[in-house]
Amino acid sequence: MSKLRVNCFSISLDGYGAGPSQSLQAPLGIGGEQLHNWFFPTATFQKMLGKEGVATGTDSEFAKRGMENLGAWILGRNMFGPVRGEWPDDSWKGWWGDEPPYHCDVFVLTHHARKPIAMQGGTTFHFVTEGVEAALEKAKAAAKGRDIRVGGGVSTLRQYLQAKLIDEMHIAVSPVLLGSGEHLWSGIDLPKLGYERKEYVPSDAAAHYVFGRR
Amino acid sequence: MSKLRVNCFSISLDGYGAGPSQSLQAPLGIGGEQLHNWFFPTATFQKMLGKEGVATGTDSEFAKRGMENLGAWILGRNMFGPVRGEWPDDSWKGWWGDEPPYHCDVFVLTHHARKPIAMQGGTTFHFVTEGVEAALEKAKAAAKGRDIRVGGGVSTLRQYLQAKLIDEMHIAVSPVLLGSGEHLWSGIDLPKLGYERKEYVPSDAAAHYVFGRR
Repeated sequence: MSKLRVNCFSISLDGYGAGPSQSLQAPLGIGGEQLHNWFFPTATFQKMLGKEGVATGTDSEFAKRGMENLGAWILGRNMFGPVRGEWPDDSWKGWWGDEPPYHCDVFVLTHHARKPIAMQGGTTFHFVTEGVEAALEKAKAAAKGRDIRVGGGVSTLRQYLQAKLIDEMHIAVSPVLLGSGEHLWSGIDLPKLGYERKEYVPSDAAAHYVFGRR
Repeated sequence: MSKLRVNCFSISLDGYGAGPSQSLQAPLGIGGEQLHNWFFPTATFQKMLGKEGVATGTDSEFAKRGMENLGAWILGRNMFGPVRGEWPDDSWKGWWGDEPPYHCDVFVLTHHARKPIAMQGGTTFHFVTEGVEAALEKAKAAAKGRDIRVGGGVSTLRQYLQAKLIDEMHIAVSPVLLGSGEHLWSGIDLPKLGYERKEYVPSDAAAHYVFGRR
């Protein structure tokens, strides 16, 4: 059975999943990049850059778990790019260059239809206009029994949490302050939605929490 | 110079400083007691119970720091007790019995005047109706150069933060979910208020953060 997972989703210690004012120059919003300081040295990320990663330990372990047994991804549109409203043309193909690090089908939530884009390395971006449940159905079909990972951003996560569709969620709280931006917890009552905290594993770079159904 | 400090203030991983529905039976709100699981085994707390504490380590270190060099405390009224509105009589003298653990002057913020109460062991509760700045002035005079600690709750902390009056703040994030209650960070933009994160020290029981002025 496919699980719907969140992994390695980084938030600030005051609860923001991205900084304010996302743009082409600041894909993670102002100050948002430091949320991922724990992730950059991990072998998983270094390998994405084509480098041989050697880091071990808690952070690397969580990064590795995040990539295991994935058959499809779901991304909010803002995570796919800075374009808002109608797609002006087909030129924007994500933040990740010709060979994105997904290597499977990726379903992008949007209000504006667009044809699928096949990228190098096995990633195909599909655009879903019918909402989070439809995206999950399509992702399940594509994943063929493997898990589906919700990549973000905050608003996409919040929608899946509120719909009680997430099976497992790993959040990395970075010891940084953002002060404003998109808040993950605001108005999200996890116990009421049926979730509990399963793991708490602090490292020197982040406090890792894993949540699951009670 | 007296510093205005917050120490050992516990919040849940989703940002709540107390559970919902505070009452005489549940001083910390429903589920709020587990916020302090890191604090209960510390030597500092065990000594308050009259026991010889032996715990050492990160949690005990933070608990100890919290009690050093204090000359006065400031508490919000809800931290002093469950009574709301006018004081019906003088019978309520705090949650802590005849000998509260403060051993100095304690200034309680309230909208309803009341005469000071001298308790055993050197604690005197004073009731301040003129707001957070007046309470701080009175506490400074009482502290005679030592520091003043804001005990809480969340709404009192938020008022002092918004007034930029806190000099140093230690927050302990417990690995528990509350889901609702009083949120510490909501609408509080610490970087904008001039604060930064100075320390991040995780233990197995809590993630400790210390904030100070930039």
